[in-house]
Amino acid sequence: MARPARQPAPPARSRLAVDARRTQLLELGLRLFVDVPYEELSIDAIARAAGISKGLLYHYFPSKRDYYVETVRLAADRLLQETELAPEGAPSLDHLSAGLDVYLDFALRHASAYRALMRGGGGIGSDPDIAAIVDDTRGAILARIRDRLGLAADDALLRAALRGWIGFVEVTSLDWLDRREPERPVLRDLWVQVFVASLLAAGFTPPLTDA
Amino acid sequence: MARPARQPAPPARSRLAVDARRTQLLELGLRLFVDVPYEELSIDAIARAAGISKGLLYHYFPSKRDYYVETVRLAADRLLQETELAPEGAPSLDHLSAGLDVYLDFALRHASAYRALMRGGGGIGSDPDIAAIVDDTRGAILARIRDRLGLAADDALLRAALRGWIGFVEVTSLDWLDRREPERPVLRDLWVQVFVASLLAAGFTPPLTDA
Repeated sequence: MARPARQPAPPARSRLAVDARRTQLLELGLRLFVDVPYEELSIDAIARAAGISKGLLYHYFPSKRDYYVETVRLAADRLLQETELAPEGAPSLDHLSAGLDVYLDFALRHASAYRALMRGGGGIGSDPDIAAIVDDTRGAILARIRDRLGLAADDALLRAALRGWIGFVEVTSLDWLDRREPERPVLRDLWVQVFVASLLAAGFTPPLTDA
Repeated sequence: MARPARQPAPPARSRLAVDARRTQLLELGLRLFVDVPYEELSIDAIARAAGISKGLLYHYFPSKRDYYVETVRLAADRLLQETELAPEGAPSLDHLSAGLDVYLDFALRHASAYRALMRGGGGIGSDPDIAAIVDDTRGAILARIRDRLGLAADDALLRAALRGWIGFVEVTSLDWLDRREPERPVLRDLWVQVFVASLLAAGFTPPLTDA
């Protein structure tokens, strides 16, 4: 892509226009980080792909780190939106299956970001904002499942079962991205069975209907 | 602790003595990183605790990052050693339970390092050496379970079940360090039940005896 001429700083714009432009830039980030890991993507490359100057990009995001954190936040929001299937009606195992299909599909479409988030393995320079987004997203998934199934919010064993199951899904998603096996429906069925088994082990019979 | 006088660089020493001294320093690291996160522990503080000069510490480890990575590697080795209970005899659920007790105890004794490793949530500046140690340790636990149970090494569904279960244990350990509930034996029994359920879901009846 040809590098555009430098652009002057933008004129005063409405807050709405600024927000819309920020969102556009973050959506671009979601696509860019699919193919290129964070470390390897330069501010130059981002500005070039957006067709704007580095200066203008910095106008919206003070640093590459800010841009990345906000991209991850947008990805987490989208993940929660996309997996929120059929919020009405009785929860069913089919519904759970469909949500899990969307989840794995999302991990596949954003494989580079998903790997970076889950593999982190930090301690050295790991980012507390990113860690908070990952934790919040897990918490939102947990709360959603609990609410849909009408389960108690303050049961420590139930929390461990659901939280553990989310960890099960995350680790196997990560491994699946590298190996692409077992077949997707086989992996998804494993998730559903372990979900039911985890709740049973925590003393809850999941009130799920088979469709 | 009073700061010792600077020491000269050590004389030529046998490789064995150097290795022993390195191991001593890493064992100190295991204790130090229990209470203080990586970011907050300075090379000065490490040298002070070891009663040696910064220069001498750098003689053994070129940087704080090297020291940290090697400390994590030692911790991972110890974890594998300590959870390797009764390698002889028929595998049993009691044996699995005992190994899981040791695992949670280890996470508790090294809570700060365990959190840093598992919570990482990197992508920004996450460390590939640390990620490799975490991955290798998971792989070693998986291979050990598979070998003990005489299960096929090339079954993708079985791999997913075991790998997912390890993720279940890791995420709930992390959560337990923060909340200290449910009671330890309750959490451990959840792990054992989900282990059996995961193998069953993958089509394997675990050849485990009840003691």
